[in-house]
Amino acid sequence: MMRLYDNHLSGNGYKPRLLLAHLVRSYERVEIDILKGGSRTPEFLAMNPNGRIPVLRLEDGTCLAESNAILWYLAEGTPFLPADPLARALTLQWMFFEQYSHEPNIAVARHWLRHVEMTEAQRAQLPSRQAGGRAALAVMERHLGHRPWFGAAAMTVADVALYAYTHVAGEGGFDLSDYPNVTAWLARVAAQPGHVPMHPAPEGVVSPRV
Amino acid sequence: MMRLYDNHLSGNGYKPRLLLAHLVRSYERVEIDILKGGSRTPEFLAMNPNGRIPVLRLEDGTCLAESNAILWYLAEGTPFLPADPLARALTLQWMFFEQYSHEPNIAVARHWLRHVEMTEAQRAQLPSRQAGGRAALAVMERHLGHRPWFGAAAMTVADVALYAYTHVAGEGGFDLSDYPNVTAWLARVAAQPGHVPMHPAPEGVVSPRV
Repeated sequence: MMRLYDNHLSGNGYKPRLLLAHLVRSYERVEIDILKGGSRTPEFLAMNPNGRIPVLRLEDGTCLAESNAILWYLAEGTPFLPADPLARALTLQWMFFEQYSHEPNIAVARHWLRHVEMTEAQRAQLPSRQAGGRAALAVMERHLGHRPWFGAAAMTVADVALYAYTHVAGEGGFDLSDYPNVTAWLARVAAQPGHVPMHPAPEGVVSPRV
Repeated sequence: MMRLYDNHLSGNGYKPRLLLAHLVRSYERVEIDILKGGSRTPEFLAMNPNGRIPVLRLEDGTCLAESNAILWYLAEGTPFLPADPLARALTLQWMFFEQYSHEPNIAVARHWLRHVEMTEAQRAQLPSRQAGGRAALAVMERHLGHRPWFGAAAMTVADVALYAYTHVAGEGGFDLSDYPNVTAWLARVAAQPGHVPMHPAPEGVVSPRV
């Protein structure tokens, strides 16, 4: 059985959880206490030398890191990854946007405000991270003004990737009411059959009912 | 003919330039002066609302952003993108590593040190960016201790993506002699038939000889 090394607070961990629920696939979830160094132990670094969750351990023991690479792997051959080469490239474009322009601003602001005691250096950086997050939300708002989804004509892994931290952006000090297209898209994602919330994360073996 | 909106100083722009040379494909290169706001004009934002180069404009007018999504699109069906699903996922894993853990540290340190007058805030962040860059190089060094390439058994777009800013990491204050496996891999990449250097970037229409 596939095993997902995860943390219940992490949007990056929620991405594969959400997709696996949509795909009605079983897996074992292992909670890693990232705030207490659980992703920096020798055992964990043997799975992912970059020391980050999530990691998906496949049945043959291969370990796959990077949330969006995990999404891509799981979605191949399903409706969450289009077949058309250009639609696939645009799906990937939005997933790289998420990891470069969105997550380092919105997720990091949320992490600092919610999960840790901010250092002086973090406090000094918070305004620029929040400005970067508002810029990312504005890019999303503009795109959604003429398209219902990000990568293709239907929901794809690009939407899963962007949903994870956008729907909790309020916890990072962002006011989503400034972005009505984004708010409507969040509701569309959450209304899809098979949707599961970020909290609570399921414990142990997850065997979805078909 | 495909058109690449690019900047000659950018490693992200060099990625598609290097792959297109390997693939012996023609394109038109358009230089965008990013330091003077060239990627923030209304015309540019209509192509990429995120205001960043590179952008690949396809013959039908579709614009594709994000350097690694452009690499993926161009490499599909070529030896630079493996066919095996797991090798593809690992290739993508390293490309997300590049954009999340490598580029924001190594490329940004290089940009601040080489191309702009650093602000106080940037100067304060430089040590942590350089520490993050050394951590990324250490992850690469560890991987290359037992494998010659990043994504698969041969060179892939993961190697193209990681080469772009690693080979100029010295300009960001990194000492590559601390990373002998990385140094050997850089030489392997540069020794591949079809390799082109980052500088000088070609001007106008690029029509490689087969």
